[in-house]
Amino acid sequence: MDVVWWEAASSGRPAAIGYVDQRRLPHDVVRSRAETVDEIVDAIAGLGVRGAPAIGVFGGYGIALARMLHADADEFTRAVARIRSARPTAVNLAWAVDRVVASASETYLDQALAIQEEQRAVDRAMGAYGAELMPLAGAVLTHCNTGPLATAGYGTALGVIIAAHERGRKLHVYVDETRPLLQGARLTTFELARAGVPATLIADGAAAATMRAKNVRAVIVGADRIATNGDTANKIGTFGVAVAAAHLGIPFYIAAPRSTIDFSLRDGSGIHIEERDGAEVRAYGGAPVAPHDIPVYNPAFDVTPGRLIAGIVTEYGVARPPYDESIPDLATRPPFGALLAAKRA
Amino acid sequence: MDVVWWEAASSGRPAAIGYVDQRRLPHDVVRSRAETVDEIVDAIAGLGVRGAPAIGVFGGYGIALARMLHADADEFTRAVARIRSARPTAVNLAWAVDRVVASASETYLDQALAIQEEQRAVDRAMGAYGAELMPLAGAVLTHCNTGPLATAGYGTALGVIIAAHERGRKLHVYVDETRPLLQGARLTTFELARAGVPATLIADGAAAATMRAKNVRAVIVGADRIATNGDTANKIGTFGVAVAAAHLGIPFYIAAPRSTIDFSLRDGSGIHIEERDGAEVRAYGGAPVAPHDIPVYNPAFDVTPGRLIAGIVTEYGVARPPYDESIPDLATRPPFGALLAAKRA
Repeated sequence: MDVVWWEAASSGRPAAIGYVDQRRLPHDVVRSRAETVDEIVDAIAGLGVRGAPAIGVFGGYGIALARMLHADADEFTRAVARIRSARPTAVNLAWAVDRVVASASETYLDQALAIQEEQRAVDRAMGAYGAELMPLAGAVLTHCNTGPLATAGYGTALGVIIAAHERGRKLHVYVDETRPLLQGARLTTFELARAGVPATLIADGAAAATMRAKNVRAVIVGADRIATNGDTANKIGTFGVAVAAAHLGIPFYIAAPRSTIDFSLRDGSGIHIEERDGAEVRAYGGAPVAPHDIPVYNPAFDVTPGRLIAGIVTEYGVARPPYDESIPDLATRPPFGALLAAKRA
Repeated sequence: MDVVWWEAASSGRPAAIGYVDQRRLPHDVVRSRAETVDEIVDAIAGLGVRGAPAIGVFGGYGIALARMLHADADEFTRAVARIRSARPTAVNLAWAVDRVVASASETYLDQALAIQEEQRAVDRAMGAYGAELMPLAGAVLTHCNTGPLATAGYGTALGVIIAAHERGRKLHVYVDETRPLLQGARLTTFELARAGVPATLIADGAAAATMRAKNVRAVIVGADRIATNGDTANKIGTFGVAVAAAHLGIPFYIAAPRSTIDFSLRDGSGIHIEERDGAEVRAYGGAPVAPHDIPVYNPAFDVTPGRLIAGIVTEYGVARPPYDESIPDLATRPPFGALLAAKRA
């Protein structure tokens, strides 16, 4: 199942970005089209497309589409700014937008297509490196959704789990439901079932008790932004899971492409954390679950200190502590696309 | 608002236990009646009445009602066994049932009424001792519901918070929503609003990040069973909150009456943890939130090691580490009812 794809103009239909609307999963697989800048921004901000790498892929196509729609330079510049800032925490969106805009304008679509093609190769590489970190058999735990839906490729942390499963490791995955938007309950369970990986859903509050009671051997999650000391912004709840893993002596891993690293940040204190509407916590599926006027603190992400992270799986291998050496080293590597081209040649 | 009360037979209506059905809060305040042993067991097992001390109060009345309904000794014995085991983890239920049954049968109702009267005095004492542990001003965090609804008195942990507020401490309470059954979102927010204490609701996964970002000064929760080394069973999610508090250097307190202590247990490994139906996690308010066939691990409680607990507030004062000395000492104190009677005399 493709998650994000380019739809060329044909038989009277304008060009568009196709995507599976993740708000409707797992109950309905709805294929939507974004044909305007408003629709692109709405799809990102409204979480129709989500997951840091998938937002990057979608944003890349968004620039190509905006270029076709807006010949006027000012209009185009405004469109770029709106797409680039549709969500603030994931660095991949700005990275992809900047990469497309930096190319010659007649090649925007080629650049966007290349970003998605590379994402698939990047995900495969993370899967291969990360699979070696998984136990030969036993329980692992993950938080939020980091599968194909999250990357428009094969996935980051969930890609690692699925790659390990494909290589014969007998994993059983405990899936945090990931309130408030339940990406774990809705999306990760769906993707693990499709991949044939045994999985059990838990409430977020059960994570620490599950790690202890079910002998969890490793925790692996994705990332939305990583500082050069390893401090990692990821879905709200990740920090608590990492602290519990440290308390129980369970290795805690991040899987994220190099594009998730913000090489300008020395630590996590500079990461802007998006706060979302309290209605996400006050209700679910239209059903109110709390008094309608109760104030809510609803940060979408938290920052896990690098010192709690045993390794960061990237397409270049597994970065290990001390991160202030291993992460800046990643900045020196050639573009993954160039490595792929060299391999093909 | 009374939460549990005795309703004597009158004008053709049989005797019953009245209770506010907590499944309907905060949107509807529904006063229900349990008139049979089946209805008593259903109210407890189905969480119409919940919170360890409130279940104890309700169970005490349940024995008095069962005695009136079942003159046959075998039938009565079966009724006692069913009520006593309607939920397995909270020790208060068995404690209250045993206390009523141990009295002369013509005094069962007096004993049950005395249990509730004592609960109110016990809660007031915990509030007074615990209030001293709260900051003079600042943020505190709690998990699940431990207010009047949970004790049929004034509350344990939430009673402490409300008592501190009444004594002029300027607290702001962060309330974990407490999935899967959302006792925090539904009940604690409701009770704090009634008490006029400023409160903010958070998703459970946000607890660790909130403690760090909002400078939380103390965490206080209730308990369902406490071993003599301080290991404490409480609502699922408590262990993770305690680990995060320890990581951040925030004192983590328990508030629970002596009846919550299981003096027969040397540590938490002997505490039976109730596992509840996976449907609680797969759906909310009738809205499915996950694939219908996904396996779920749904423990209702977890055990927090005593070494993570800075103090245990009881009606006799604050027990401090080492708990294997301070907790057994509590067993030597006279019954709180006797202390109350002495004070009155």
